[in-house]
Amino acid sequence: MLGAVLHSPRDIRCEEVDEPKILHPTDAIIKLSASCVCGSDLWPYRGLQPISEPMHMGHEYCGMVVEVGSAVRTVKPGQFVVGSFCISDNTCPHCRFGFQSSCEQREFMSAAQAPLARVPLADGTLVATPSMPADDLIPSLLAASDVLGTGWYAADAARVQPGCTVVVVGDGAVGLMGVLAAKQMGARRIIAMSRHKTRQNLALEFGATDIVSERGDAGVARVKQLTDGVGAESVLECVGMQESMMQALNCARPGGSIGFVGVPHGVQLDGQKLFFAQKSLLGGPAPVRRFLPHLIELVWDRKINPGKVFDLTIPLADVAEGYRAMDERRAIKTMLRL
Amino acid sequence: MLGAVLHSPRDIRCEEVDEPKILHPTDAIIKLSASCVCGSDLWPYRGLQPISEPMHMGHEYCGMVVEVGSAVRTVKPGQFVVGSFCISDNTCPHCRFGFQSSCEQREFMSAAQAPLARVPLADGTLVATPSMPADDLIPSLLAASDVLGTGWYAADAARVQPGCTVVVVGDGAVGLMGVLAAKQMGARRIIAMSRHKTRQNLALEFGATDIVSERGDAGVARVKQLTDGVGAESVLECVGMQESMMQALNCARPGGSIGFVGVPHGVQLDGQKLFFAQKSLLGGPAPVRRFLPHLIELVWDRKINPGKVFDLTIPLADVAEGYRAMDERRAIKTMLRL
Repeated sequence: MLGAVLHSPRDIRCEEVDEPKILHPTDAIIKLSASCVCGSDLWPYRGLQPISEPMHMGHEYCGMVVEVGSAVRTVKPGQFVVGSFCISDNTCPHCRFGFQSSCEQREFMSAAQAPLARVPLADGTLVATPSMPADDLIPSLLAASDVLGTGWYAADAARVQPGCTVVVVGDGAVGLMGVLAAKQMGARRIIAMSRHKTRQNLALEFGATDIVSERGDAGVARVKQLTDGVGAESVLECVGMQESMMQALNCARPGGSIGFVGVPHGVQLDGQKLFFAQKSLLGGPAPVRRFLPHLIELVWDRKINPGKVFDLTIPLADVAEGYRAMDERRAIKTMLRL
Repeated sequence: MLGAVLHSPRDIRCEEVDEPKILHPTDAIIKLSASCVCGSDLWPYRGLQPISEPMHMGHEYCGMVVEVGSAVRTVKPGQFVVGSFCISDNTCPHCRFGFQSSCEQREFMSAAQAPLARVPLADGTLVATPSMPADDLIPSLLAASDVLGTGWYAADAARVQPGCTVVVVGDGAVGLMGVLAAKQMGARRIIAMSRHKTRQNLALEFGATDIVSERGDAGVARVKQLTDGVGAESVLECVGMQESMMQALNCARPGGSIGFVGVPHGVQLDGQKLFFAQKSLLGGPAPVRRFLPHLIELVWDRKINPGKVFDLTIPLADVAEGYRAMDERRAIKTMLRL
């Protein structure tokens, strides 16, 4: 079969790869309905995360189970499933505490930019839909696998409550999903920080009430102005740079919470400044599995349409263009037809 | 009158100072029932926090109101009051959000190691007791002003819940109050990290279920062993050094929370490590005012006895010995008779 393989920075190829096989009795093989490119795929693509050998890309997936290992109990061939980009057993103490992304057996999904993929720990990782989904639900179910679940976790970690004021730093796909999540959680005011018209429009469609196009100190000043000088109860940091983290911290009110889901690159925090800022911080890879049943239900009942975040759909064969479009910010998120 | 004045590192003197006067209509003057030395007083005493001029020490206080400014409405002369070391108006948005220690008009109390003290923003800062307290309640009411309130905030920021497992890093007075707070909040297991017999005993008396005398990685390993390899839901960091902060972070389980109340000195946090650790952090000067009514009630009803944390009581005239005893860890906390 064909799959996306990154050979070196900016050298991503759609090439012949081996079909996945059951390696452990707890594995499942699924036939993907679609695949996509993640913002985090751009770190190795841009050479900011070194790779030592060709890397089989892709960790977001949904599709039909075609084969299961002998120990798999809860999913079976023919079922349609969505899974998290974090593989988890869903039974260890960390999973039971709701942090499946720190599962004692955690692995990160890979090689999902391909028509078939192996999912380890299938019982713990996969959630079946009520039946086969309509075609138009596929993008939204695919989004639930990572980008929606990650935006949702950002809002959860930032302790979004009904009626509260939320700031979202970062207008990538995850930030936009954070807006959607905050809206679902009942935020009264959602301030999206974005400088790009298309993304601003999507943020507004997902529930943003205000757009702030300024960045850094000017952006913080504008947020303060919009909140009577107080700042926001909840801030979602969806970038992962020093500047965006400072922006997030400074937009929060004392006692407010920052959920940070952009993998930090070069971010340093001074303990004493954090102390006097008196703001709560929680980040990490999203425990998407915790939220999946609820997210699938919201998609299934057509209460949310996170699939709108895909603004470029191309065949897997054109995967290089999919990465380029995201790298150059011409696309928010690329879906790959298989 | 006599008051404690720090002239330079380790040069603390009890000397003649001016009696405080009402400076603003919102001030009150109180006659202190007792005063005490705080762990944070040791930072300038040890020269780790530079001072530019003689510093009138002391920020913990309780006593009788003797005079109020013309704008004071809620307390009156003759009432017994307890106040926070953080002066707050208790009406601004930050106060109403429960973070009086980030009040828009915040000041830090000073010059309270003396028989009389001026308390700014008296209406927002002071809480009156139901009547004049019995003498044996004075130490506990004095403790509520800072050290108990700070330990309580550490437990609150670490999101201690009934039935949970708590680790307390630091066996100073605040750490011991953190043990007491965690017990009151219903923690099932409270692991106190302490190497000193007297402090271990007091921790056990306040509700600790386990003592870990190892530090650093060995201490973390012991905590992991005691918690079946999982770690604690809630960790109270009551020291403020890099090593103690790392110890606190590593004792918490993924998804767990660290409340840090030791003012950080030289603490740096790496964003990416914090991300993958996936632990919640909230610190800052304690919003004691939020907790004061409840803490006074617990003391008044003799449900808690935080005053036990004072293991040295000497006259104000001997203040230098009071500081020395704490500096050399011969005393946990020094009370000053006025």
